[in-house]
Amino acid sequence: MSDPERRSSMAIRGCDVLVRVTPDDVEVARDRTILVRDGAIEAIVPSGAAATPAVDEVIDASGTLAVPGLINTHTHAPMVLLRGAAEDVTIEDWFNRLIWPMETNLTPALVRLGAQLACAEMLAAGVTTFVDHYFAMDEVADVVVATGIRADLGSAFFGSDGPAGLERSLDFARRRRGDGDGRVTTSLAPHATYTVDDDLLTATAEAARTDGLRIHVHAAESMDQTRASIEQHGITPIEVLARTGVLDAGALIAHGTGITPADLPRLAAVADRVGVATSPKGYLKAAWSTTPIRGLREAGVPVGLATDGAAIHNTLDVWESVRLTALIQKDHEHDPTWLTRHQALHHATVQSAAAIGQAGRLGVLEPGARADLALIDLQAAHLRPIHDHAAMLVHSVRASDVTTTIVDGRVVYRDRRLTTIDLPALLEEVDREVGALLDVSHGTRIQTYDH
Amino acid sequence: MSDPERRSSMAIRGCDVLVRVTPDDVEVARDRTILVRDGAIEAIVPSGAAATPAVDEVIDASGTLAVPGLINTHTHAPMVLLRGAAEDVTIEDWFNRLIWPMETNLTPALVRLGAQLACAEMLAAGVTTFVDHYFAMDEVADVVVATGIRADLGSAFFGSDGPAGLERSLDFARRRRGDGDGRVTTSLAPHATYTVDDDLLTATAEAARTDGLRIHVHAAESMDQTRASIEQHGITPIEVLARTGVLDAGALIAHGTGITPADLPRLAAVADRVGVATSPKGYLKAAWSTTPIRGLREAGVPVGLATDGAAIHNTLDVWESVRLTALIQKDHEHDPTWLTRHQALHHATVQSAAAIGQAGRLGVLEPGARADLALIDLQAAHLRPIHDHAAMLVHSVRASDVTTTIVDGRVVYRDRRLTTIDLPALLEEVDREVGALLDVSHGTRIQTYDH
Repeated sequence: MSDPERRSSMAIRGCDVLVRVTPDDVEVARDRTILVRDGAIEAIVPSGAAATPAVDEVIDASGTLAVPGLINTHTHAPMVLLRGAAEDVTIEDWFNRLIWPMETNLTPALVRLGAQLACAEMLAAGVTTFVDHYFAMDEVADVVVATGIRADLGSAFFGSDGPAGLERSLDFARRRRGDGDGRVTTSLAPHATYTVDDDLLTATAEAARTDGLRIHVHAAESMDQTRASIEQHGITPIEVLARTGVLDAGALIAHGTGITPADLPRLAAVADRVGVATSPKGYLKAAWSTTPIRGLREAGVPVGLATDGAAIHNTLDVWESVRLTALIQKDHEHDPTWLTRHQALHHATVQSAAAIGQAGRLGVLEPGARADLALIDLQAAHLRPIHDHAAMLVHSVRASDVTTTIVDGRVVYRDRRLTTIDLPALLEEVDREVGALLDVSHGTRIQTYDH
Repeated sequence: MSDPERRSSMAIRGCDVLVRVTPDDVEVARDRTILVRDGAIEAIVPSGAAATPAVDEVIDASGTLAVPGLINTHTHAPMVLLRGAAEDVTIEDWFNRLIWPMETNLTPALVRLGAQLACAEMLAAGVTTFVDHYFAMDEVADVVVATGIRADLGSAFFGSDGPAGLERSLDFARRRRGDGDGRVTTSLAPHATYTVDDDLLTATAEAARTDGLRIHVHAAESMDQTRASIEQHGITPIEVLARTGVLDAGALIAHGTGITPADLPRLAAVADRVGVATSPKGYLKAAWSTTPIRGLREAGVPVGLATDGAAIHNTLDVWESVRLTALIQKDHEHDPTWLTRHQALHHATVQSAAAIGQAGRLGVLEPGARADLALIDLQAAHLRPIHDHAAMLVHSVRASDVTTTIVDGRVVYRDRRLTTIDLPALLEEVDREVGALLDVSHGTRIQTYDH
């Protein structure tokens, strides 16, 4: 599908630019112009440079800081419709009494509506890519194409769907990859090690290798799940992924708060093709542990930042995940010097891109990378003075400080207004349609959670 | 000092109103008009009601939710100038190597500048009251009067200042209380149990009783401090406050993450005049434990929410404290059903007012309370749909969703613009002046931290 509103070239003028993020440092270049051509960054030059080439569009970005667009490495976007519908409950009640009964009410139209609302929220927050794992994914793909965001999409299946579930996931992945001028990539999406049996995971791994796809799967979500896996199968969820070939095929593991020290060498061996997505707010709400980032770092496994679905996280605000990752790692490791602000930003940018298999293409502002970026308004009391850019980005910035969001060289949020979504009309439609989703009087659910 | 811009009456029309917050529930009244007279709420009536009295000013608040203005129950406002200047370090390095050396560079002019920036940040976030404990407090009081915010102010002193420190604190408290049409209240402000000796604390308690003042003091900030107190004095910091009469006089205890189960009965006995201020973000950054809210609740002690200074918290955003309190209590108590969204809001409103000795006057929207409130714009993707107002306020709202802030019946932030502060000029002045504060080449510090 074509994307007619993208200009072939653009100059983003007069901003400071976060040009480099490492685990130990960040570099901000002052007063730069970012030149964009055909959706990619062509050059980043001093704004005063003599010869700025002619471009189709010039954006005045003075007074802002340009940062790589954030990547939400694991979510279920349409679940924004369930925001706030299941609060202060155990994870068993969350799944069995509330969310899975509600999800029996899902229709393709509701999935589309939820995806639109989710994209509105993410684009306004400077989130330029999301990685989704849900149902009726053709609807989500259509919304991605229309709204101009970037996404990696996987059509979810359970073991109870049998081989037909994998077939549908594969069919979706083949049909939709490359849509939206390449903004859509796809993955295979078995739900989890505890809801999909080993034979189907093995078949998934084979299909992934044959078709050059990655696998996006929930695993070791909590330490309880890991204990249950050891009891039932004698091995951890990560060992299940290894045994079935999922790790070897290349995988994005959602959550991993139940990853054990013994799992780490196994993950280290596939660190070039496996990543972990962490969404700490949900773990706090569920009173789970958190992803063992220190161990994963030593194993060389990239850890991307995520929000999970808004039914647990309440927002799709990846800035919250950046901040909470820094705070919670200090707390859980009892070390105020660990997971520094630089490391947090490295997870939010370079490692998030690596975790979803797009290192170098996303998560950096440098020539050759896709032109996915957010402009942050620095004229705000809560951001000043700026003694330290990394501290500002991790501990002070709010999603609402983003004034402009650009994806693949196209302005999708300009001066705090969405360019591809009619927000007032969308909010009205959400209010009109959402009631049907909450009815659990039917007494059924899509699955039963018991780890 | 007079406050000429306050209109004598006002109608805030067409908003939903958070009219009641209990630990178990919240109530939102739809489409109401809030009538304000002489800085207090006179009535909250249905907007369609026939007879709305004539008023000096009408505010169109349709599409918003009115909530009580937030109370920052413990901060050091001028420290916004040190935001981001001391990151990822141990608490010893934070005090001894960075913050206390930098604070030797403070001048009254810098304190004034920092207080202005802090008030700009808080008013834009819907924070209508702050409780401050710092130096050169006449400067802060002047800024409070000029910007229209409400504050309880205490002039800090150390044991090393001798009795003159208490004298200055008392002189300030007597001179400035009641300023700004009553928006300024004052407290006595000994720094902490570990920096002020027992004799001076005892004298402070006597002065507080004589002058009808409360005492604002750091105590049991961390479990390390409690252990050090037991080692050095044989008793906990809370027992020090009891022995010296500080608790009996009425006190606001900052932090209290080192409060022990044995301290709770002692606090329960003075729960009618003692409160605790909790600022969880800083505890996470310092890798401390957190305030034992569950125990304090059972003891009947009100726990207010706070940010502490921005040198540790990076913002003065009390919404962050609301959310983190809910999240961290679940995590630390390993209970997803504890510290519910309703409890979090109760801490943010009713308990924060009680913790600072202003129950019924602040923290509620009801006739007779001061007219301190914030209007939250609900036309935002990240807040919708609204299945649960409490969940929205605790887990989704950002400070930037506040469009209008009213203090004592005066509009101090209107349609996202400050009415009493020239923000661009202020930010320029901050950039020009702040450098002098960071120089630690002199090799001195205002105190030495060793618990």
